[in-house]
Amino acid sequence: MSGNTFGTIFRVTTWGESHGAAVGVVIDGCPPGLPLGEAEVQKELDRRRPGQSDISTPRKEEDRVAILSGIFEGRTTGTPISMIVRNRDVDSLPYEKLRHTPRPGHADYPYDAKYGIRDHRGGGRASARETIGRVAAGAIARKVLAEHGIDVLAHVIALGGVRARESEITPALIKENIERTPVRCADLNAAEQMIELIRSVREQGDSLGGIVEIVATGATAGIGEPVFDKLDADLAKALMGIGAVKGVEIGVGFRCAGMKGSEMNDAFEISPNGEEVVVSETNNAGGILGGLSTGAPIVCRIAVKPTPSISLPQKTVDLRTMQETEITIKGRHDPAIPPRIVPVAEAMVAIVLADHLLRNTALKPHTKTL
Amino acid sequence: MSGNTFGTIFRVTTWGESHGAAVGVVIDGCPPGLPLGEAEVQKELDRRRPGQSDISTPRKEEDRVAILSGIFEGRTTGTPISMIVRNRDVDSLPYEKLRHTPRPGHADYPYDAKYGIRDHRGGGRASARETIGRVAAGAIARKVLAEHGIDVLAHVIALGGVRARESEITPALIKENIERTPVRCADLNAAEQMIELIRSVREQGDSLGGIVEIVATGATAGIGEPVFDKLDADLAKALMGIGAVKGVEIGVGFRCAGMKGSEMNDAFEISPNGEEVVVSETNNAGGILGGLSTGAPIVCRIAVKPTPSISLPQKTVDLRTMQETEITIKGRHDPAIPPRIVPVAEAMVAIVLADHLLRNTALKPHTKTL
Amino acid sequence: MSGNTFGTIFRVTTWGESHGAAVGVVIDGCPPGLPLGEAEVQKELDRRRPGQSDISTPRKEEDRVAILSGIFEGRTTGTPISMIVRNRDVDSLPYEKLRHTPRPGHADYPYDAKYGIRDHRGGGRASARETIGRVAAGAIARKVLAEHGIDVLAHVIALGGVRARESEITPALIKENIERTPVRCADLNAAEQMIELIRSVREQGDSLGGIVEIVATGATAGIGEPVFDKLDADLAKALMGIGAVKGVEIGVGFRCAGMKGSEMNDAFEISPNGEEVVVSETNNAGGILGGLSTGAPIVCRIAVKPTPSISLPQKTVDLRTMQETEITIKGRHDPAIPPRIVPVAEAMVAIVLADHLLRNTALKPHTKTL
Amino acid sequence: MSGNTFGTIFRVTTWGESHGAAVGVVIDGCPPGLPLGEAEVQKELDRRRPGQSDISTPRKEEDRVAILSGIFEGRTTGTPISMIVRNRDVDSLPYEKLRHTPRPGHADYPYDAKYGIRDHRGGGRASARETIGRVAAGAIARKVLAEHGIDVLAHVIALGGVRARESEITPALIKENIERTPVRCADLNAAEQMIELIRSVREQGDSLGGIVEIVATGATAGIGEPVFDKLDADLAKALMGIGAVKGVEIGVGFRCAGMKGSEMNDAFEISPNGEEVVVSETNNAGGILGGLSTGAPIVCRIAVKPTPSISLPQKTVDLRTMQETEITIKGRHDPAIPPRIVPVAEAMVAIVLADHLLRNTALKPHTKTL
Repeated sequence: MSGNTFGTIFRVTTWGESHGAAVGVVIDGCPPGLPLGEAEVQKELDRRRPGQSDISTPRKEEDRVAILSGIFEGRTTGTPISMIVRNRDVDSLPYEKLRHTPRPGHADYPYDAKYGIRDHRGGGRASARETIGRVAAGAIARKVLAEHGIDVLAHVIALGGVRARESEITPALIKENIERTPVRCADLNAAEQMIELIRSVREQGDSLGGIVEIVATGATAGIGEPVFDKLDADLAKALMGIGAVKGVEIGVGFRCAGMKGSEMNDAFEISPNGEEVVVSETNNAGGILGGLSTGAPIVCRIAVKPTPSISLPQKTVDLRTMQETEITIKGRHDPAIPPRIVPVAEAMVAIVLADHLLRNTALKPHTKTL
Repeated sequence: MSGNTFGTIFRVTTWGESHGAAVGVVIDGCPPGLPLGEAEVQKELDRRRPGQSDISTPRKEEDRVAILSGIFEGRTTGTPISMIVRNRDVDSLPYEKLRHTPRPGHADYPYDAKYGIRDHRGGGRASARETIGRVAAGAIARKVLAEHGIDVLAHVIALGGVRARESEITPALIKENIERTPVRCADLNAAEQMIELIRSVREQGDSLGGIVEIVATGATAGIGEPVFDKLDADLAKALMGIGAVKGVEIGVGFRCAGMKGSEMNDAFEISPNGEEVVVSETNNAGGILGGLSTGAPIVCRIAVKPTPSISLPQKTVDLRTMQETEITIKGRHDPAIPPRIVPVAEAMVAIVLADHLLRNTALKPHTKTL
Repeated sequence: MSGNTFGTIFRVTTWGESHGAAVGVVIDGCPPGLPLGEAEVQKELDRRRPGQSDISTPRKEEDRVAILSGIFEGRTTGTPISMIVRNRDVDSLPYEKLRHTPRPGHADYPYDAKYGIRDHRGGGRASARETIGRVAAGAIARKVLAEHGIDVLAHVIALGGVRARESEITPALIKENIERTPVRCADLNAAEQMIELIRSVREQGDSLGGIVEIVATGATAGIGEPVFDKLDADLAKALMGIGAVKGVEIGVGFRCAGMKGSEMNDAFEISPNGEEVVVSETNNAGGILGGLSTGAPIVCRIAVKPTPSISLPQKTVDLRTMQETEITIKGRHDPAIPPRIVPVAEAMVAIVLADHLLRNTALKPHTKTL
Repeated sequence: MSGNTFGTIFRVTTWGESHGAAVGVVIDGCPPGLPLGEAEVQKELDRRRPGQSDISTPRKEEDRVAILSGIFEGRTTGTPISMIVRNRDVDSLPYEKLRHTPRPGHADYPYDAKYGIRDHRGGGRASARETIGRVAAGAIARKVLAEHGIDVLAHVIALGGVRARESEITPALIKENIERTPVRCADLNAAEQMIELIRSVREQGDSLGGIVEIVATGATAGIGEPVFDKLDADLAKALMGIGAVKGVEIGVGFRCAGMKGSEMNDAFEISPNGEEVVVSETNNAGGILGGLSTGAPIVCRIAVKPTPSISLPQKTVDLRTMQETEITIKGRHDPAIPPRIVPVAEAMVAIVLADHLLRNTALKPHTKTL
């Protein structure tokens, strides 16, 4: 059973290869009556688009989206929404000599092992272009969430050795600063150092990893589906399934390993701002307990590995001759992916939340006996 | 849509509450003809069982499994396998006074918010007893994997501040040492320190977190289903969905954020032991590239938070009066969960691998054009 | 991928073999807060139970259900509901000599071909005992439906050559007469003839087929999920998936083949009883248009084949020797299944409607623009 | 949860509205390495295309398919196959005055009730144009089946009152005659009468129903997934889910209601043509027992209602004013759908069989103990 569909009620199916005719997505399960136009989707795709600054890949793609179905007179109809983006600036030549020599750190080798056939051009299906469908779907998921007052923001908190001063970053600051620098770090000083670092590493023909944080605000308590489709479980799946991600944490994440229960537990209290609502002063749990949202902001962090496409020479094997050989990769690549993963990570979190919001609706308690 | 089923071909559905009549699991999609008896399942349940040492909960449960269907004359028949374990040592009294005061760090509050009704006794559905079904299913998944030479091992690598010397731990050492101490740490010196630490923290009425590593050996390249059901994505979901887990990493995990591409990429080479097989000397990727297994050992690590049930007084809210109040938790609890998560984590990884092994089989390449 | 789960939001998984330890069902996705007790489930199981009259199988089973999870203080909790019925009056001896000689009209031969192993005792998984899980789940689905004013009734309209006078049968009459005779035919004259016929055919060692009609009243317009999970499509699947069913029709069914559009179309009008509601005088469509409920009663009919277990000698093949041979079947069998399919058919229709009711809820229109 | 995806391993998702930009389909789960070109898909679409004869709708659509992904160098890659057909000959004007007056026998009224918004032009999502995606997917499913020697054929056996002489129709005759007349009836005499009848009914502004039979040959025994995803259950769903279908039967279908067990059961024997294979002389079961294929031809029949779009005046309700009114439908419509359903029914049966063939592969018996 293949795995190109994500979600259960808000279902997203992506298709397309990097150097094929187009990439696209079909969304089934978007509620009817939602105002929606191509401009809203395009706005998110523009954030994902390559060639936006001198520190990202020079591949030039306009990435114009067309919505082919599911919209009538400016509103969703509840039928599948099909969106398509044509591939234009395609140059398959550099990939020809990589056809039988899998690139280290890339999907080439296990794809060959799995499928026995592979569109090697531009990484084929394993290319970052596949995320166009995710971002387009995420734009619609955001619309669903906005109806319920939920917002999703991501930002780079570490790149190479440089770390943002996290303690000073608020959602408001993220919103303000996120698009002010090409590295999408809310701490502008750190951003400057990150940019410097990227430039120097690119000159070396090498690349950098980093950490991206995603914060979702506005979700009420009780979203998630124990015991397997917990909210954190599905967020972990969604985020780990983005290419280059090697780790996911919720709230304090791996730091919890060194904490005591008395430090980790977020004590409950009545909201200090007057409302009769249960809240917590701390948010070590990252807004999720028992796989359900608690009402606090949902906080995830992902580890993004350095771009595997580097221009330094690398050892590999020629699969025809089964002889060891060496390759250098000449294509057009981002020396650091974390800034470009920001809109993709936002999209995946938005899709998970929209899906779980609708799942939660489907099984509303019959009576309140609390 | 509820979430009590895991997997697509090898499908696991668990049911049951901590203080209800029983807990159990139904497995649909186990291949027919596999030799299977209750003893093999019981063996894994015995590893999970509470009350095994002085550093774990004193709840006494025999946890005898009965297989009610799907087996005929010692073999699986391809029909659903239903397994049941009765709850016996149930003492609901201590929970009565927690009925309306959600325990910090527990699922109580969001469960109330979601369902409007909750079996509060012993944590109800959110209890660790639910993992009995997972471990029983995992025992069968292991049988499926063993047919393909795949083995799954987990061990504690950090507990409180104590860390095992990871560089010296091999799969063979894990196998040898894992059950020799109640903390299930392969580094026996570290194990001793961990046990000390647990004893002292328990006396304080507090608890500890830790890190568990899971290693799966023997998987061939090409297992996983891009682009959403990647092997690492499904492992992340399976592991993050275990209660108390707040982080998941694959291979070097979060360390990749500070690495360069030239350090991170695992170069391909021909197996040095004579076989004409593609391998890598390093395994920073943790055995997964592009969401597919590479043939190297699959390595995951999970962050386990300290047990939220502590006997120190904690602030919370009485949901009837909406007044702040204080609770102390008297039940029977493990001061450190990581050792008991070991068999559960192994089970979840085994289930993911068995499911993906069968998924991979379903779509065998029609012809090899490599 | 195995197929022992039915439904998407209201999900039913059955397990168990005829002569195994027990049969059972797990329901995931039942809304929380619904009042529910074992008695309500038992009532439906008692209707399904064998040995209720002299015209059905003499197998004596009490079929006492136990609900093991998902209920707390008399209400559903939204967690999985596990139900179990022990097998008691098991006599496997008559099946031993049928182990390698597949019974004509039964599942024996293709089960062997599919699984390579088979619990042959009492038909194993393919036994009618499997429907216990369906009927138990249906009892709960009925509770969900009752909250929305939906009721499901089935009755026998043809048995052997005898047909009920359908034009005179109303839902009220079905309700009144359905349990008054063991053949569950609402036309009591026809019922008497059917009973005669069954007795005479049983004496010949032969069996009879028939037709069962299912009527669901009270569903509002708009239930169903085009384009593949249409309400009629899922009803067809649910009903055709009952053992012995060889045909399913909706509304006029096969009669439509000889009708003109002007006869078939149900004209819309305003309800003659004063309400400002769209209705139709005729109901040729059987309450379903475009795969969605119209608000009119939903009417399905199923063709039930004669019991394949007959005591007359039959030709078959010994699969060990691959020689032709002859068998006579001595077990305890119903000479006519339609009356016993009535509660099963009701259950399956109830499950489909409950599932689609919840599916419909999950995607409520965002705004009404009509 | 919406329902625009069909299948579990071979998964088909259709999208698009009649008068939108395009219609299309995404197939996930097609095995890699299968030779495939647009011509093979086009061939099936050409059979489905409107405007092929004087007895069908005059809507002129070229229906040129483009395959946008999932194919590389003439072979499938195991990644999603996206196919698109542009809508060209669109005339929405006649539909404007039907916007608020639901057409009897059509999906208009319940769609409004369900979604609250509806693309009314050309029937929107409920249009027969949606079947383009099904036929395109079916063309690929056929390729999968052909590799296993399975072929699927459909033909019209009744139209209006005219019935083909079924007893004389063999698969070979169907193949020979199916495309020789626009009514797709293998009995050429009956075909002639059917054509006459269609012409006369069309002149009256009325329409006709009929019966289509689908025969699949070459399937080995054991395909299907009890107890809910039985082969006949999924065929029933697939076929009942085609617009205008009101009944589905397998083998003798509703005729079984009047048969005795001794007549209905197909006796097993050793193949008379020398092979050591279990066969049956009769095929009353239609090639399916216990929800599994038996190795005999799989035979289904569907009842197709007369086209609801007739030009005779019809009563309906204006949903704005809630007043009764009268409409006449002027669009371009087929007076009899059965001939055009032939390729759609073949496609749906092919999709079900391809999906179940792959499902069966996924769970191959571990050992043969027979």
